[in-house]
Amino acid sequence: MAAQAVGRRGPARRSWLMRVRAFGGGIIRSSPSRFAILVFATLVLLTTALLSLPLARAGTGTGGTPLYDAFFTAVSTICVTGLTTVDMATHWSPFGNAVIFIGMNIGGMGVLTLASILGFVISRRLGLRAKLIAASDTNPSRAHAGPVSERQAIRLGEVGGLLATVAVSTLAIEAVIMVGMIPSVLAKGYDFGTSLWYSAYYAVSAFTNTGFNPNPEGPVEFFDDYWFQSLMMIAVFLGSLGFPVIFALLRTWSSPRRWSVHVKLTITTTVALWFAGAITFLVLEYDNPRTYGSFGFGKTLYEAFFMSTMTRSGGFATIDMADMYGSSLLVTDMLMFVGGGSASTAGGIKVTTLAVLFLAAYAEARGKPAMEAFGRRIPRDMLRLAVSVVLWGATIVAVSTVIITQITKSPLDFVLFDVISAFATCGLSTGLTESLPPEGKYVMALTMFMGRVGTVTLAAAFAATQKRQLFKRPEERPIVG
Amino acid sequence: MAAQAVGRRGPARRSWLMRVRAFGGGIIRSSPSRFAILVFATLVLLTTALLSLPLARAGTGTGGTPLYDAFFTAVSTICVTGLTTVDMATHWSPFGNAVIFIGMNIGGMGVLTLASILGFVISRRLGLRAKLIAASDTNPSRAHAGPVSERQAIRLGEVGGLLATVAVSTLAIEAVIMVGMIPSVLAKGYDFGTSLWYSAYYAVSAFTNTGFNPNPEGPVEFFDDYWFQSLMMIAVFLGSLGFPVIFALLRTWSSPRRWSVHVKLTITTTVALWFAGAITFLVLEYDNPRTYGSFGFGKTLYEAFFMSTMTRSGGFATIDMADMYGSSLLVTDMLMFVGGGSASTAGGIKVTTLAVLFLAAYAEARGKPAMEAFGRRIPRDMLRLAVSVVLWGATIVAVSTVIITQITKSPLDFVLFDVISAFATCGLSTGLTESLPPEGKYVMALTMFMGRVGTVTLAAAFAATQKRQLFKRPEERPIVG
Ligand SMILES: [K+]
Ligand SMILES: [K+]
Repeated sequence: MAAQAVGRRGPARRSWLMRVRAFGGGIIRSSPSRFAILVFATLVLLTTALLSLPLARAGTGTGGTPLYDAFFTAVSTICVTGLTTVDMATHWSPFGNAVIFIGMNIGGMGVLTLASILGFVISRRLGLRAKLIAASDTNPSRAHAGPVSERQAIRLGEVGGLLATVAVSTLAIEAVIMVGMIPSVLAKGYDFGTSLWYSAYYAVSAFTNTGFNPNPEGPVEFFDDYWFQSLMMIAVFLGSLGFPVIFALLRTWSSPRRWSVHVKLTITTTVALWFAGAITFLVLEYDNPRTYGSFGFGKTLYEAFFMSTMTRSGGFATIDMADMYGSSLLVTDMLMFVGGGSASTAGGIKVTTLAVLFLAAYAEARGKPAMEAFGRRIPRDMLRLAVSVVLWGATIVAVSTVIITQITKSPLDFVLFDVISAFATCGLSTGLTESLPPEGKYVMALTMFMGRVGTVTLAAAFAATQKRQLFKRPEERPIVG
Repeated sequence: MAAQAVGRRGPARRSWLMRVRAFGGGIIRSSPSRFAILVFATLVLLTTALLSLPLARAGTGTGGTPLYDAFFTAVSTICVTGLTTVDMATHWSPFGNAVIFIGMNIGGMGVLTLASILGFVISRRLGLRAKLIAASDTNPSRAHAGPVSERQAIRLGEVGGLLATVAVSTLAIEAVIMVGMIPSVLAKGYDFGTSLWYSAYYAVSAFTNTGFNPNPEGPVEFFDDYWFQSLMMIAVFLGSLGFPVIFALLRTWSSPRRWSVHVKLTITTTVALWFAGAITFLVLEYDNPRTYGSFGFGKTLYEAFFMSTMTRSGGFATIDMADMYGSSLLVTDMLMFVGGGSASTAGGIKVTTLAVLFLAAYAEARGKPAMEAFGRRIPRDMLRLAVSVVLWGATIVAVSTVIITQITKSPLDFVLFDVISAFATCGLSTGLTESLPPEGKYVMALTMFMGRVGTVTLAAAFAATQKRQLFKRPEERPIVG
C-alpha cells in the first residue's frame, strides 16, 4: 500500500520537481544574486525547522528550542558565523549536533559552490569569479598574454569538476586537522569516541571558519596545548585564504613568481594584517590584568598571534572578549570588518577589497594613472566594486548598530563588536548577543545573513556588468568582496 | 639711538625677509601641501604664544594658561573646530578674546585662501580647486562645450580679486547675521555693548562653523528664541556650503539649471543629510526624558533640525550631548564624519566625497560604464580621490580613537564622538575632551589639525596628479575633500 501510494504520487512529484528545476534554472540565468539569496534562505529555513524539533534539544520534556534561538543558530551555522545564543556544548541533542555539524560543512562549501555557479552563469557575459578560479591555476600563456580571455571561463563540465575538487579538498584538509587533534583531546582525559567527535567538530568548525565549540569550556581547555592551538590557527588561516589561493598554493607552492595577482595580494594583505593585529594586541593588552597581564612574554606573543588569526573570521577565543580594553575591542572591530580572502569561508569585506582601496590611494598620491600591484595593472572598475562592497558593509553595520543600541542601550564598545562580528561572520562575542531580547536576536540574525550573502552576491552580480575594459599593460583582476 | 639701531638692522632684515619670501615662493611651487601645512602650523604657534601670555587670561595673578590648554585652544580656533578644554566665556581676558575672535576669522577665511592659492599653483598643471571656483561661475560656454579647459584656470590677478571677494563676502554675511542677532541678545537683558560683542562673536563663530560661545550658558540661553536659533542655523548652513556654492547661489539663485554639478551635488547631498539626520534624531530621542522627552512635537521637530544642522560642523548644541542615547551619538558621529561642502569652513570628508562614493556604487549596480549625476559624467579619477580622502579620515579617526581609549579607558560612545568631532572640526562634545589629561589634549589637537589641513591639502595635492582624461560626454568635476 505504501508502494502504491508512492507510485500514485510519483508522476505528480516528478512534474513538481521539474517545475522547480525549470524555475531554478530560470532564476539562475535571469538573476544570479536572487538565486543565491534563495539558496541560502532555503538552507536557513530548513535548518531552523530541524533545530526547532524537540528531538534536536538535549534532555527530555523541554518542548524544543524557542523559534528565535533555533533561527539564530540556523543562520549562524549556515553562514558559518559562530555567534551563539545558547550553550552549543550542552543545549543540543546528538541529532541537533548532527544537523549543526552538516550545516557547517554545507554552509562552508556552499559559499564557494554558490560563488562558482554564479561565476559560471556570469562567465557568459564575462565572469569575474569563474575566471578567478581559473586564474588561480598557473597557466603561463595567461600570465604573459594579457588579461584572462573569454575562452578561459569555466565550462559547465568544469563546474562539476571544480565542486568535486572543492568538496574532496575540504574533507581531506579537515581529516588531516582532525587526526592531528585527536592526541590533544585524548590527553585531556576524554574517551576515544568523544575525542573523535570533538576533533572532527573542531576541525570542521575551524576550517569552515565557523567557530562553534563542542566542549563546554571551549578552546580555553586547550590553553596550555600549543600543538592544538597551532592546528586551529592553521585550519582557520587556510580556510580564510579561500580556495583559489589554496589551489594555487598546492600546485605551485615552490614558485611564488607564477602566482596570480589575486593570490599574491591575498597572501600579502593577510600576513600584513596578521602581524599588525598581533603587535597591536601585544602593545595594548600587555598590562591588562584580566587578559595577558599575568602571562610571560612568550605566551603573550603567542596568544596575540592566536587572537589576530581568529579575527580573520575564525571566531575562537582563549580570553574573554569583554575583559579586553576598549582600544583592543576597536582594533578587533577593524580586523573583523576586513575579514578574510575572497571566495573563502571567511566573511568581512575581504582583504583584497582593502588592498584595492589602498592601491588606489597610493596610485593617487604618486600621480600614477592606474593602480598597480606586482607588476600588473589593476583595472579601474575594481575600485568601483571595492567601494560598493565597503559601502554595503558599512551601511549594514551602521544600521544594525544603531538599532541594537537603541533596543538595549548597551555601550557602543560591545554593540559595535558583536554587530561587526555578525556582519563579518566572525563569531567572537563580548557576551552581548546571548543576552539580547528576541527582537535583537532577529536583527543580529539578519545582519549575519546580509553580511554572508551580501558580499558574495554583490561581487558576482556586479561582475556581470563589467563589459568595457582598457588594455594597456597586462591586466589582472583580483577578486573583491 | 633707537632710529640708528633700526637703520643699522634695516638691510639685514630686508634681506632676511627676501630670503623668507624666496623660500616661501619656492615651497609653494615645489610642494603646495607642505606650504599649506607650514601656514597653518605657523598660525597655530603664533596663536598659542599669544594665548599663553598672562595678559590673555582673565583675572590677575593667575600666571597665564598652561601650554596644553593654550595650544589646544589655538588649534581649535585656527582650525575652526570649537572644541574647548577651558570655559571660553570666563577663562580669557578681553585681549585673549580678541585673539580668538580674529583667529576664527583668519582660520575660516584661511581655509579658502589656502585652497585658492593651492588651486592657482596647481592650475598650471591642471588645477582642481581653482577650476572649481571658476566652475561655480555660470559660464554658458563651459557648461556646453565639454570639460573645463586650461584657459579657464584662474590667473594670478584673479586670485587677488577672489580673495578680496571672499573676505568682503564673509564680513558682509557676518555683519547681517550680527545685526539680526542684536535684538535677541538685548531681550535677554544684556547692555548694548555686551549685546554687540555677543552678536558679533556668535555671527563669526556660526558662519565660520567654529562653535565657540561667548556667554557662559551658550546657545541654551536662547533656547526659547526661534529667531536667534534660526539665524545660527542659516549662518552655519551657509558657511558649510562653501564659497563656490555661495557665489553660485548669489549670482544665479533664480536659475538652478545653470548651476554646476558641484553646486547641485553639494546642495542635494546637504539637504538630504539634513532631513535624514533630523528625522533620525526625532525617532531615536523622542522619548528620552533627558533630551526631547519633555518637549512637544513642534519643539522636538525644530530642535532635531537644529541638531542636524550643527552636525554639518557648526558645533553649537542646545542639549547636552552626553544625555543623548548611544544610538543618536552614533548617528551624529556619521553625520559629523561627512561634514560640509568642499572649500568651505566646514570639516569632515565633505558631502561631495560621500556623493561620489554612492554615485560609484549606483553606477556599479546599474552596470553603467561611468558615474553620472545631473546629466554629466563624473570622471573616474574622482573616485580615487574620494577613496583617498575617506581612507585618510578613517585612519586618523581610528588611530586617535584607539590612543584616547587606551589612555583614558573611557567608553567608546564618548571617545568616538569627541574624536570624530575633532577630526571633522565640528566641536560638539560629550564632555570627554575637557576632562582629558594633557597628553590626551595633545592627541586631540593633532587630530583637529590633521583633520583640517589634511583634507584640504590632500585634495589640492592630488589634483596636481590628474593629467589623463577620457572625453566622451561633457565632463565636470565636483570638488572632493
Ligand atoms: K566564524
Ligand atoms: K566647528
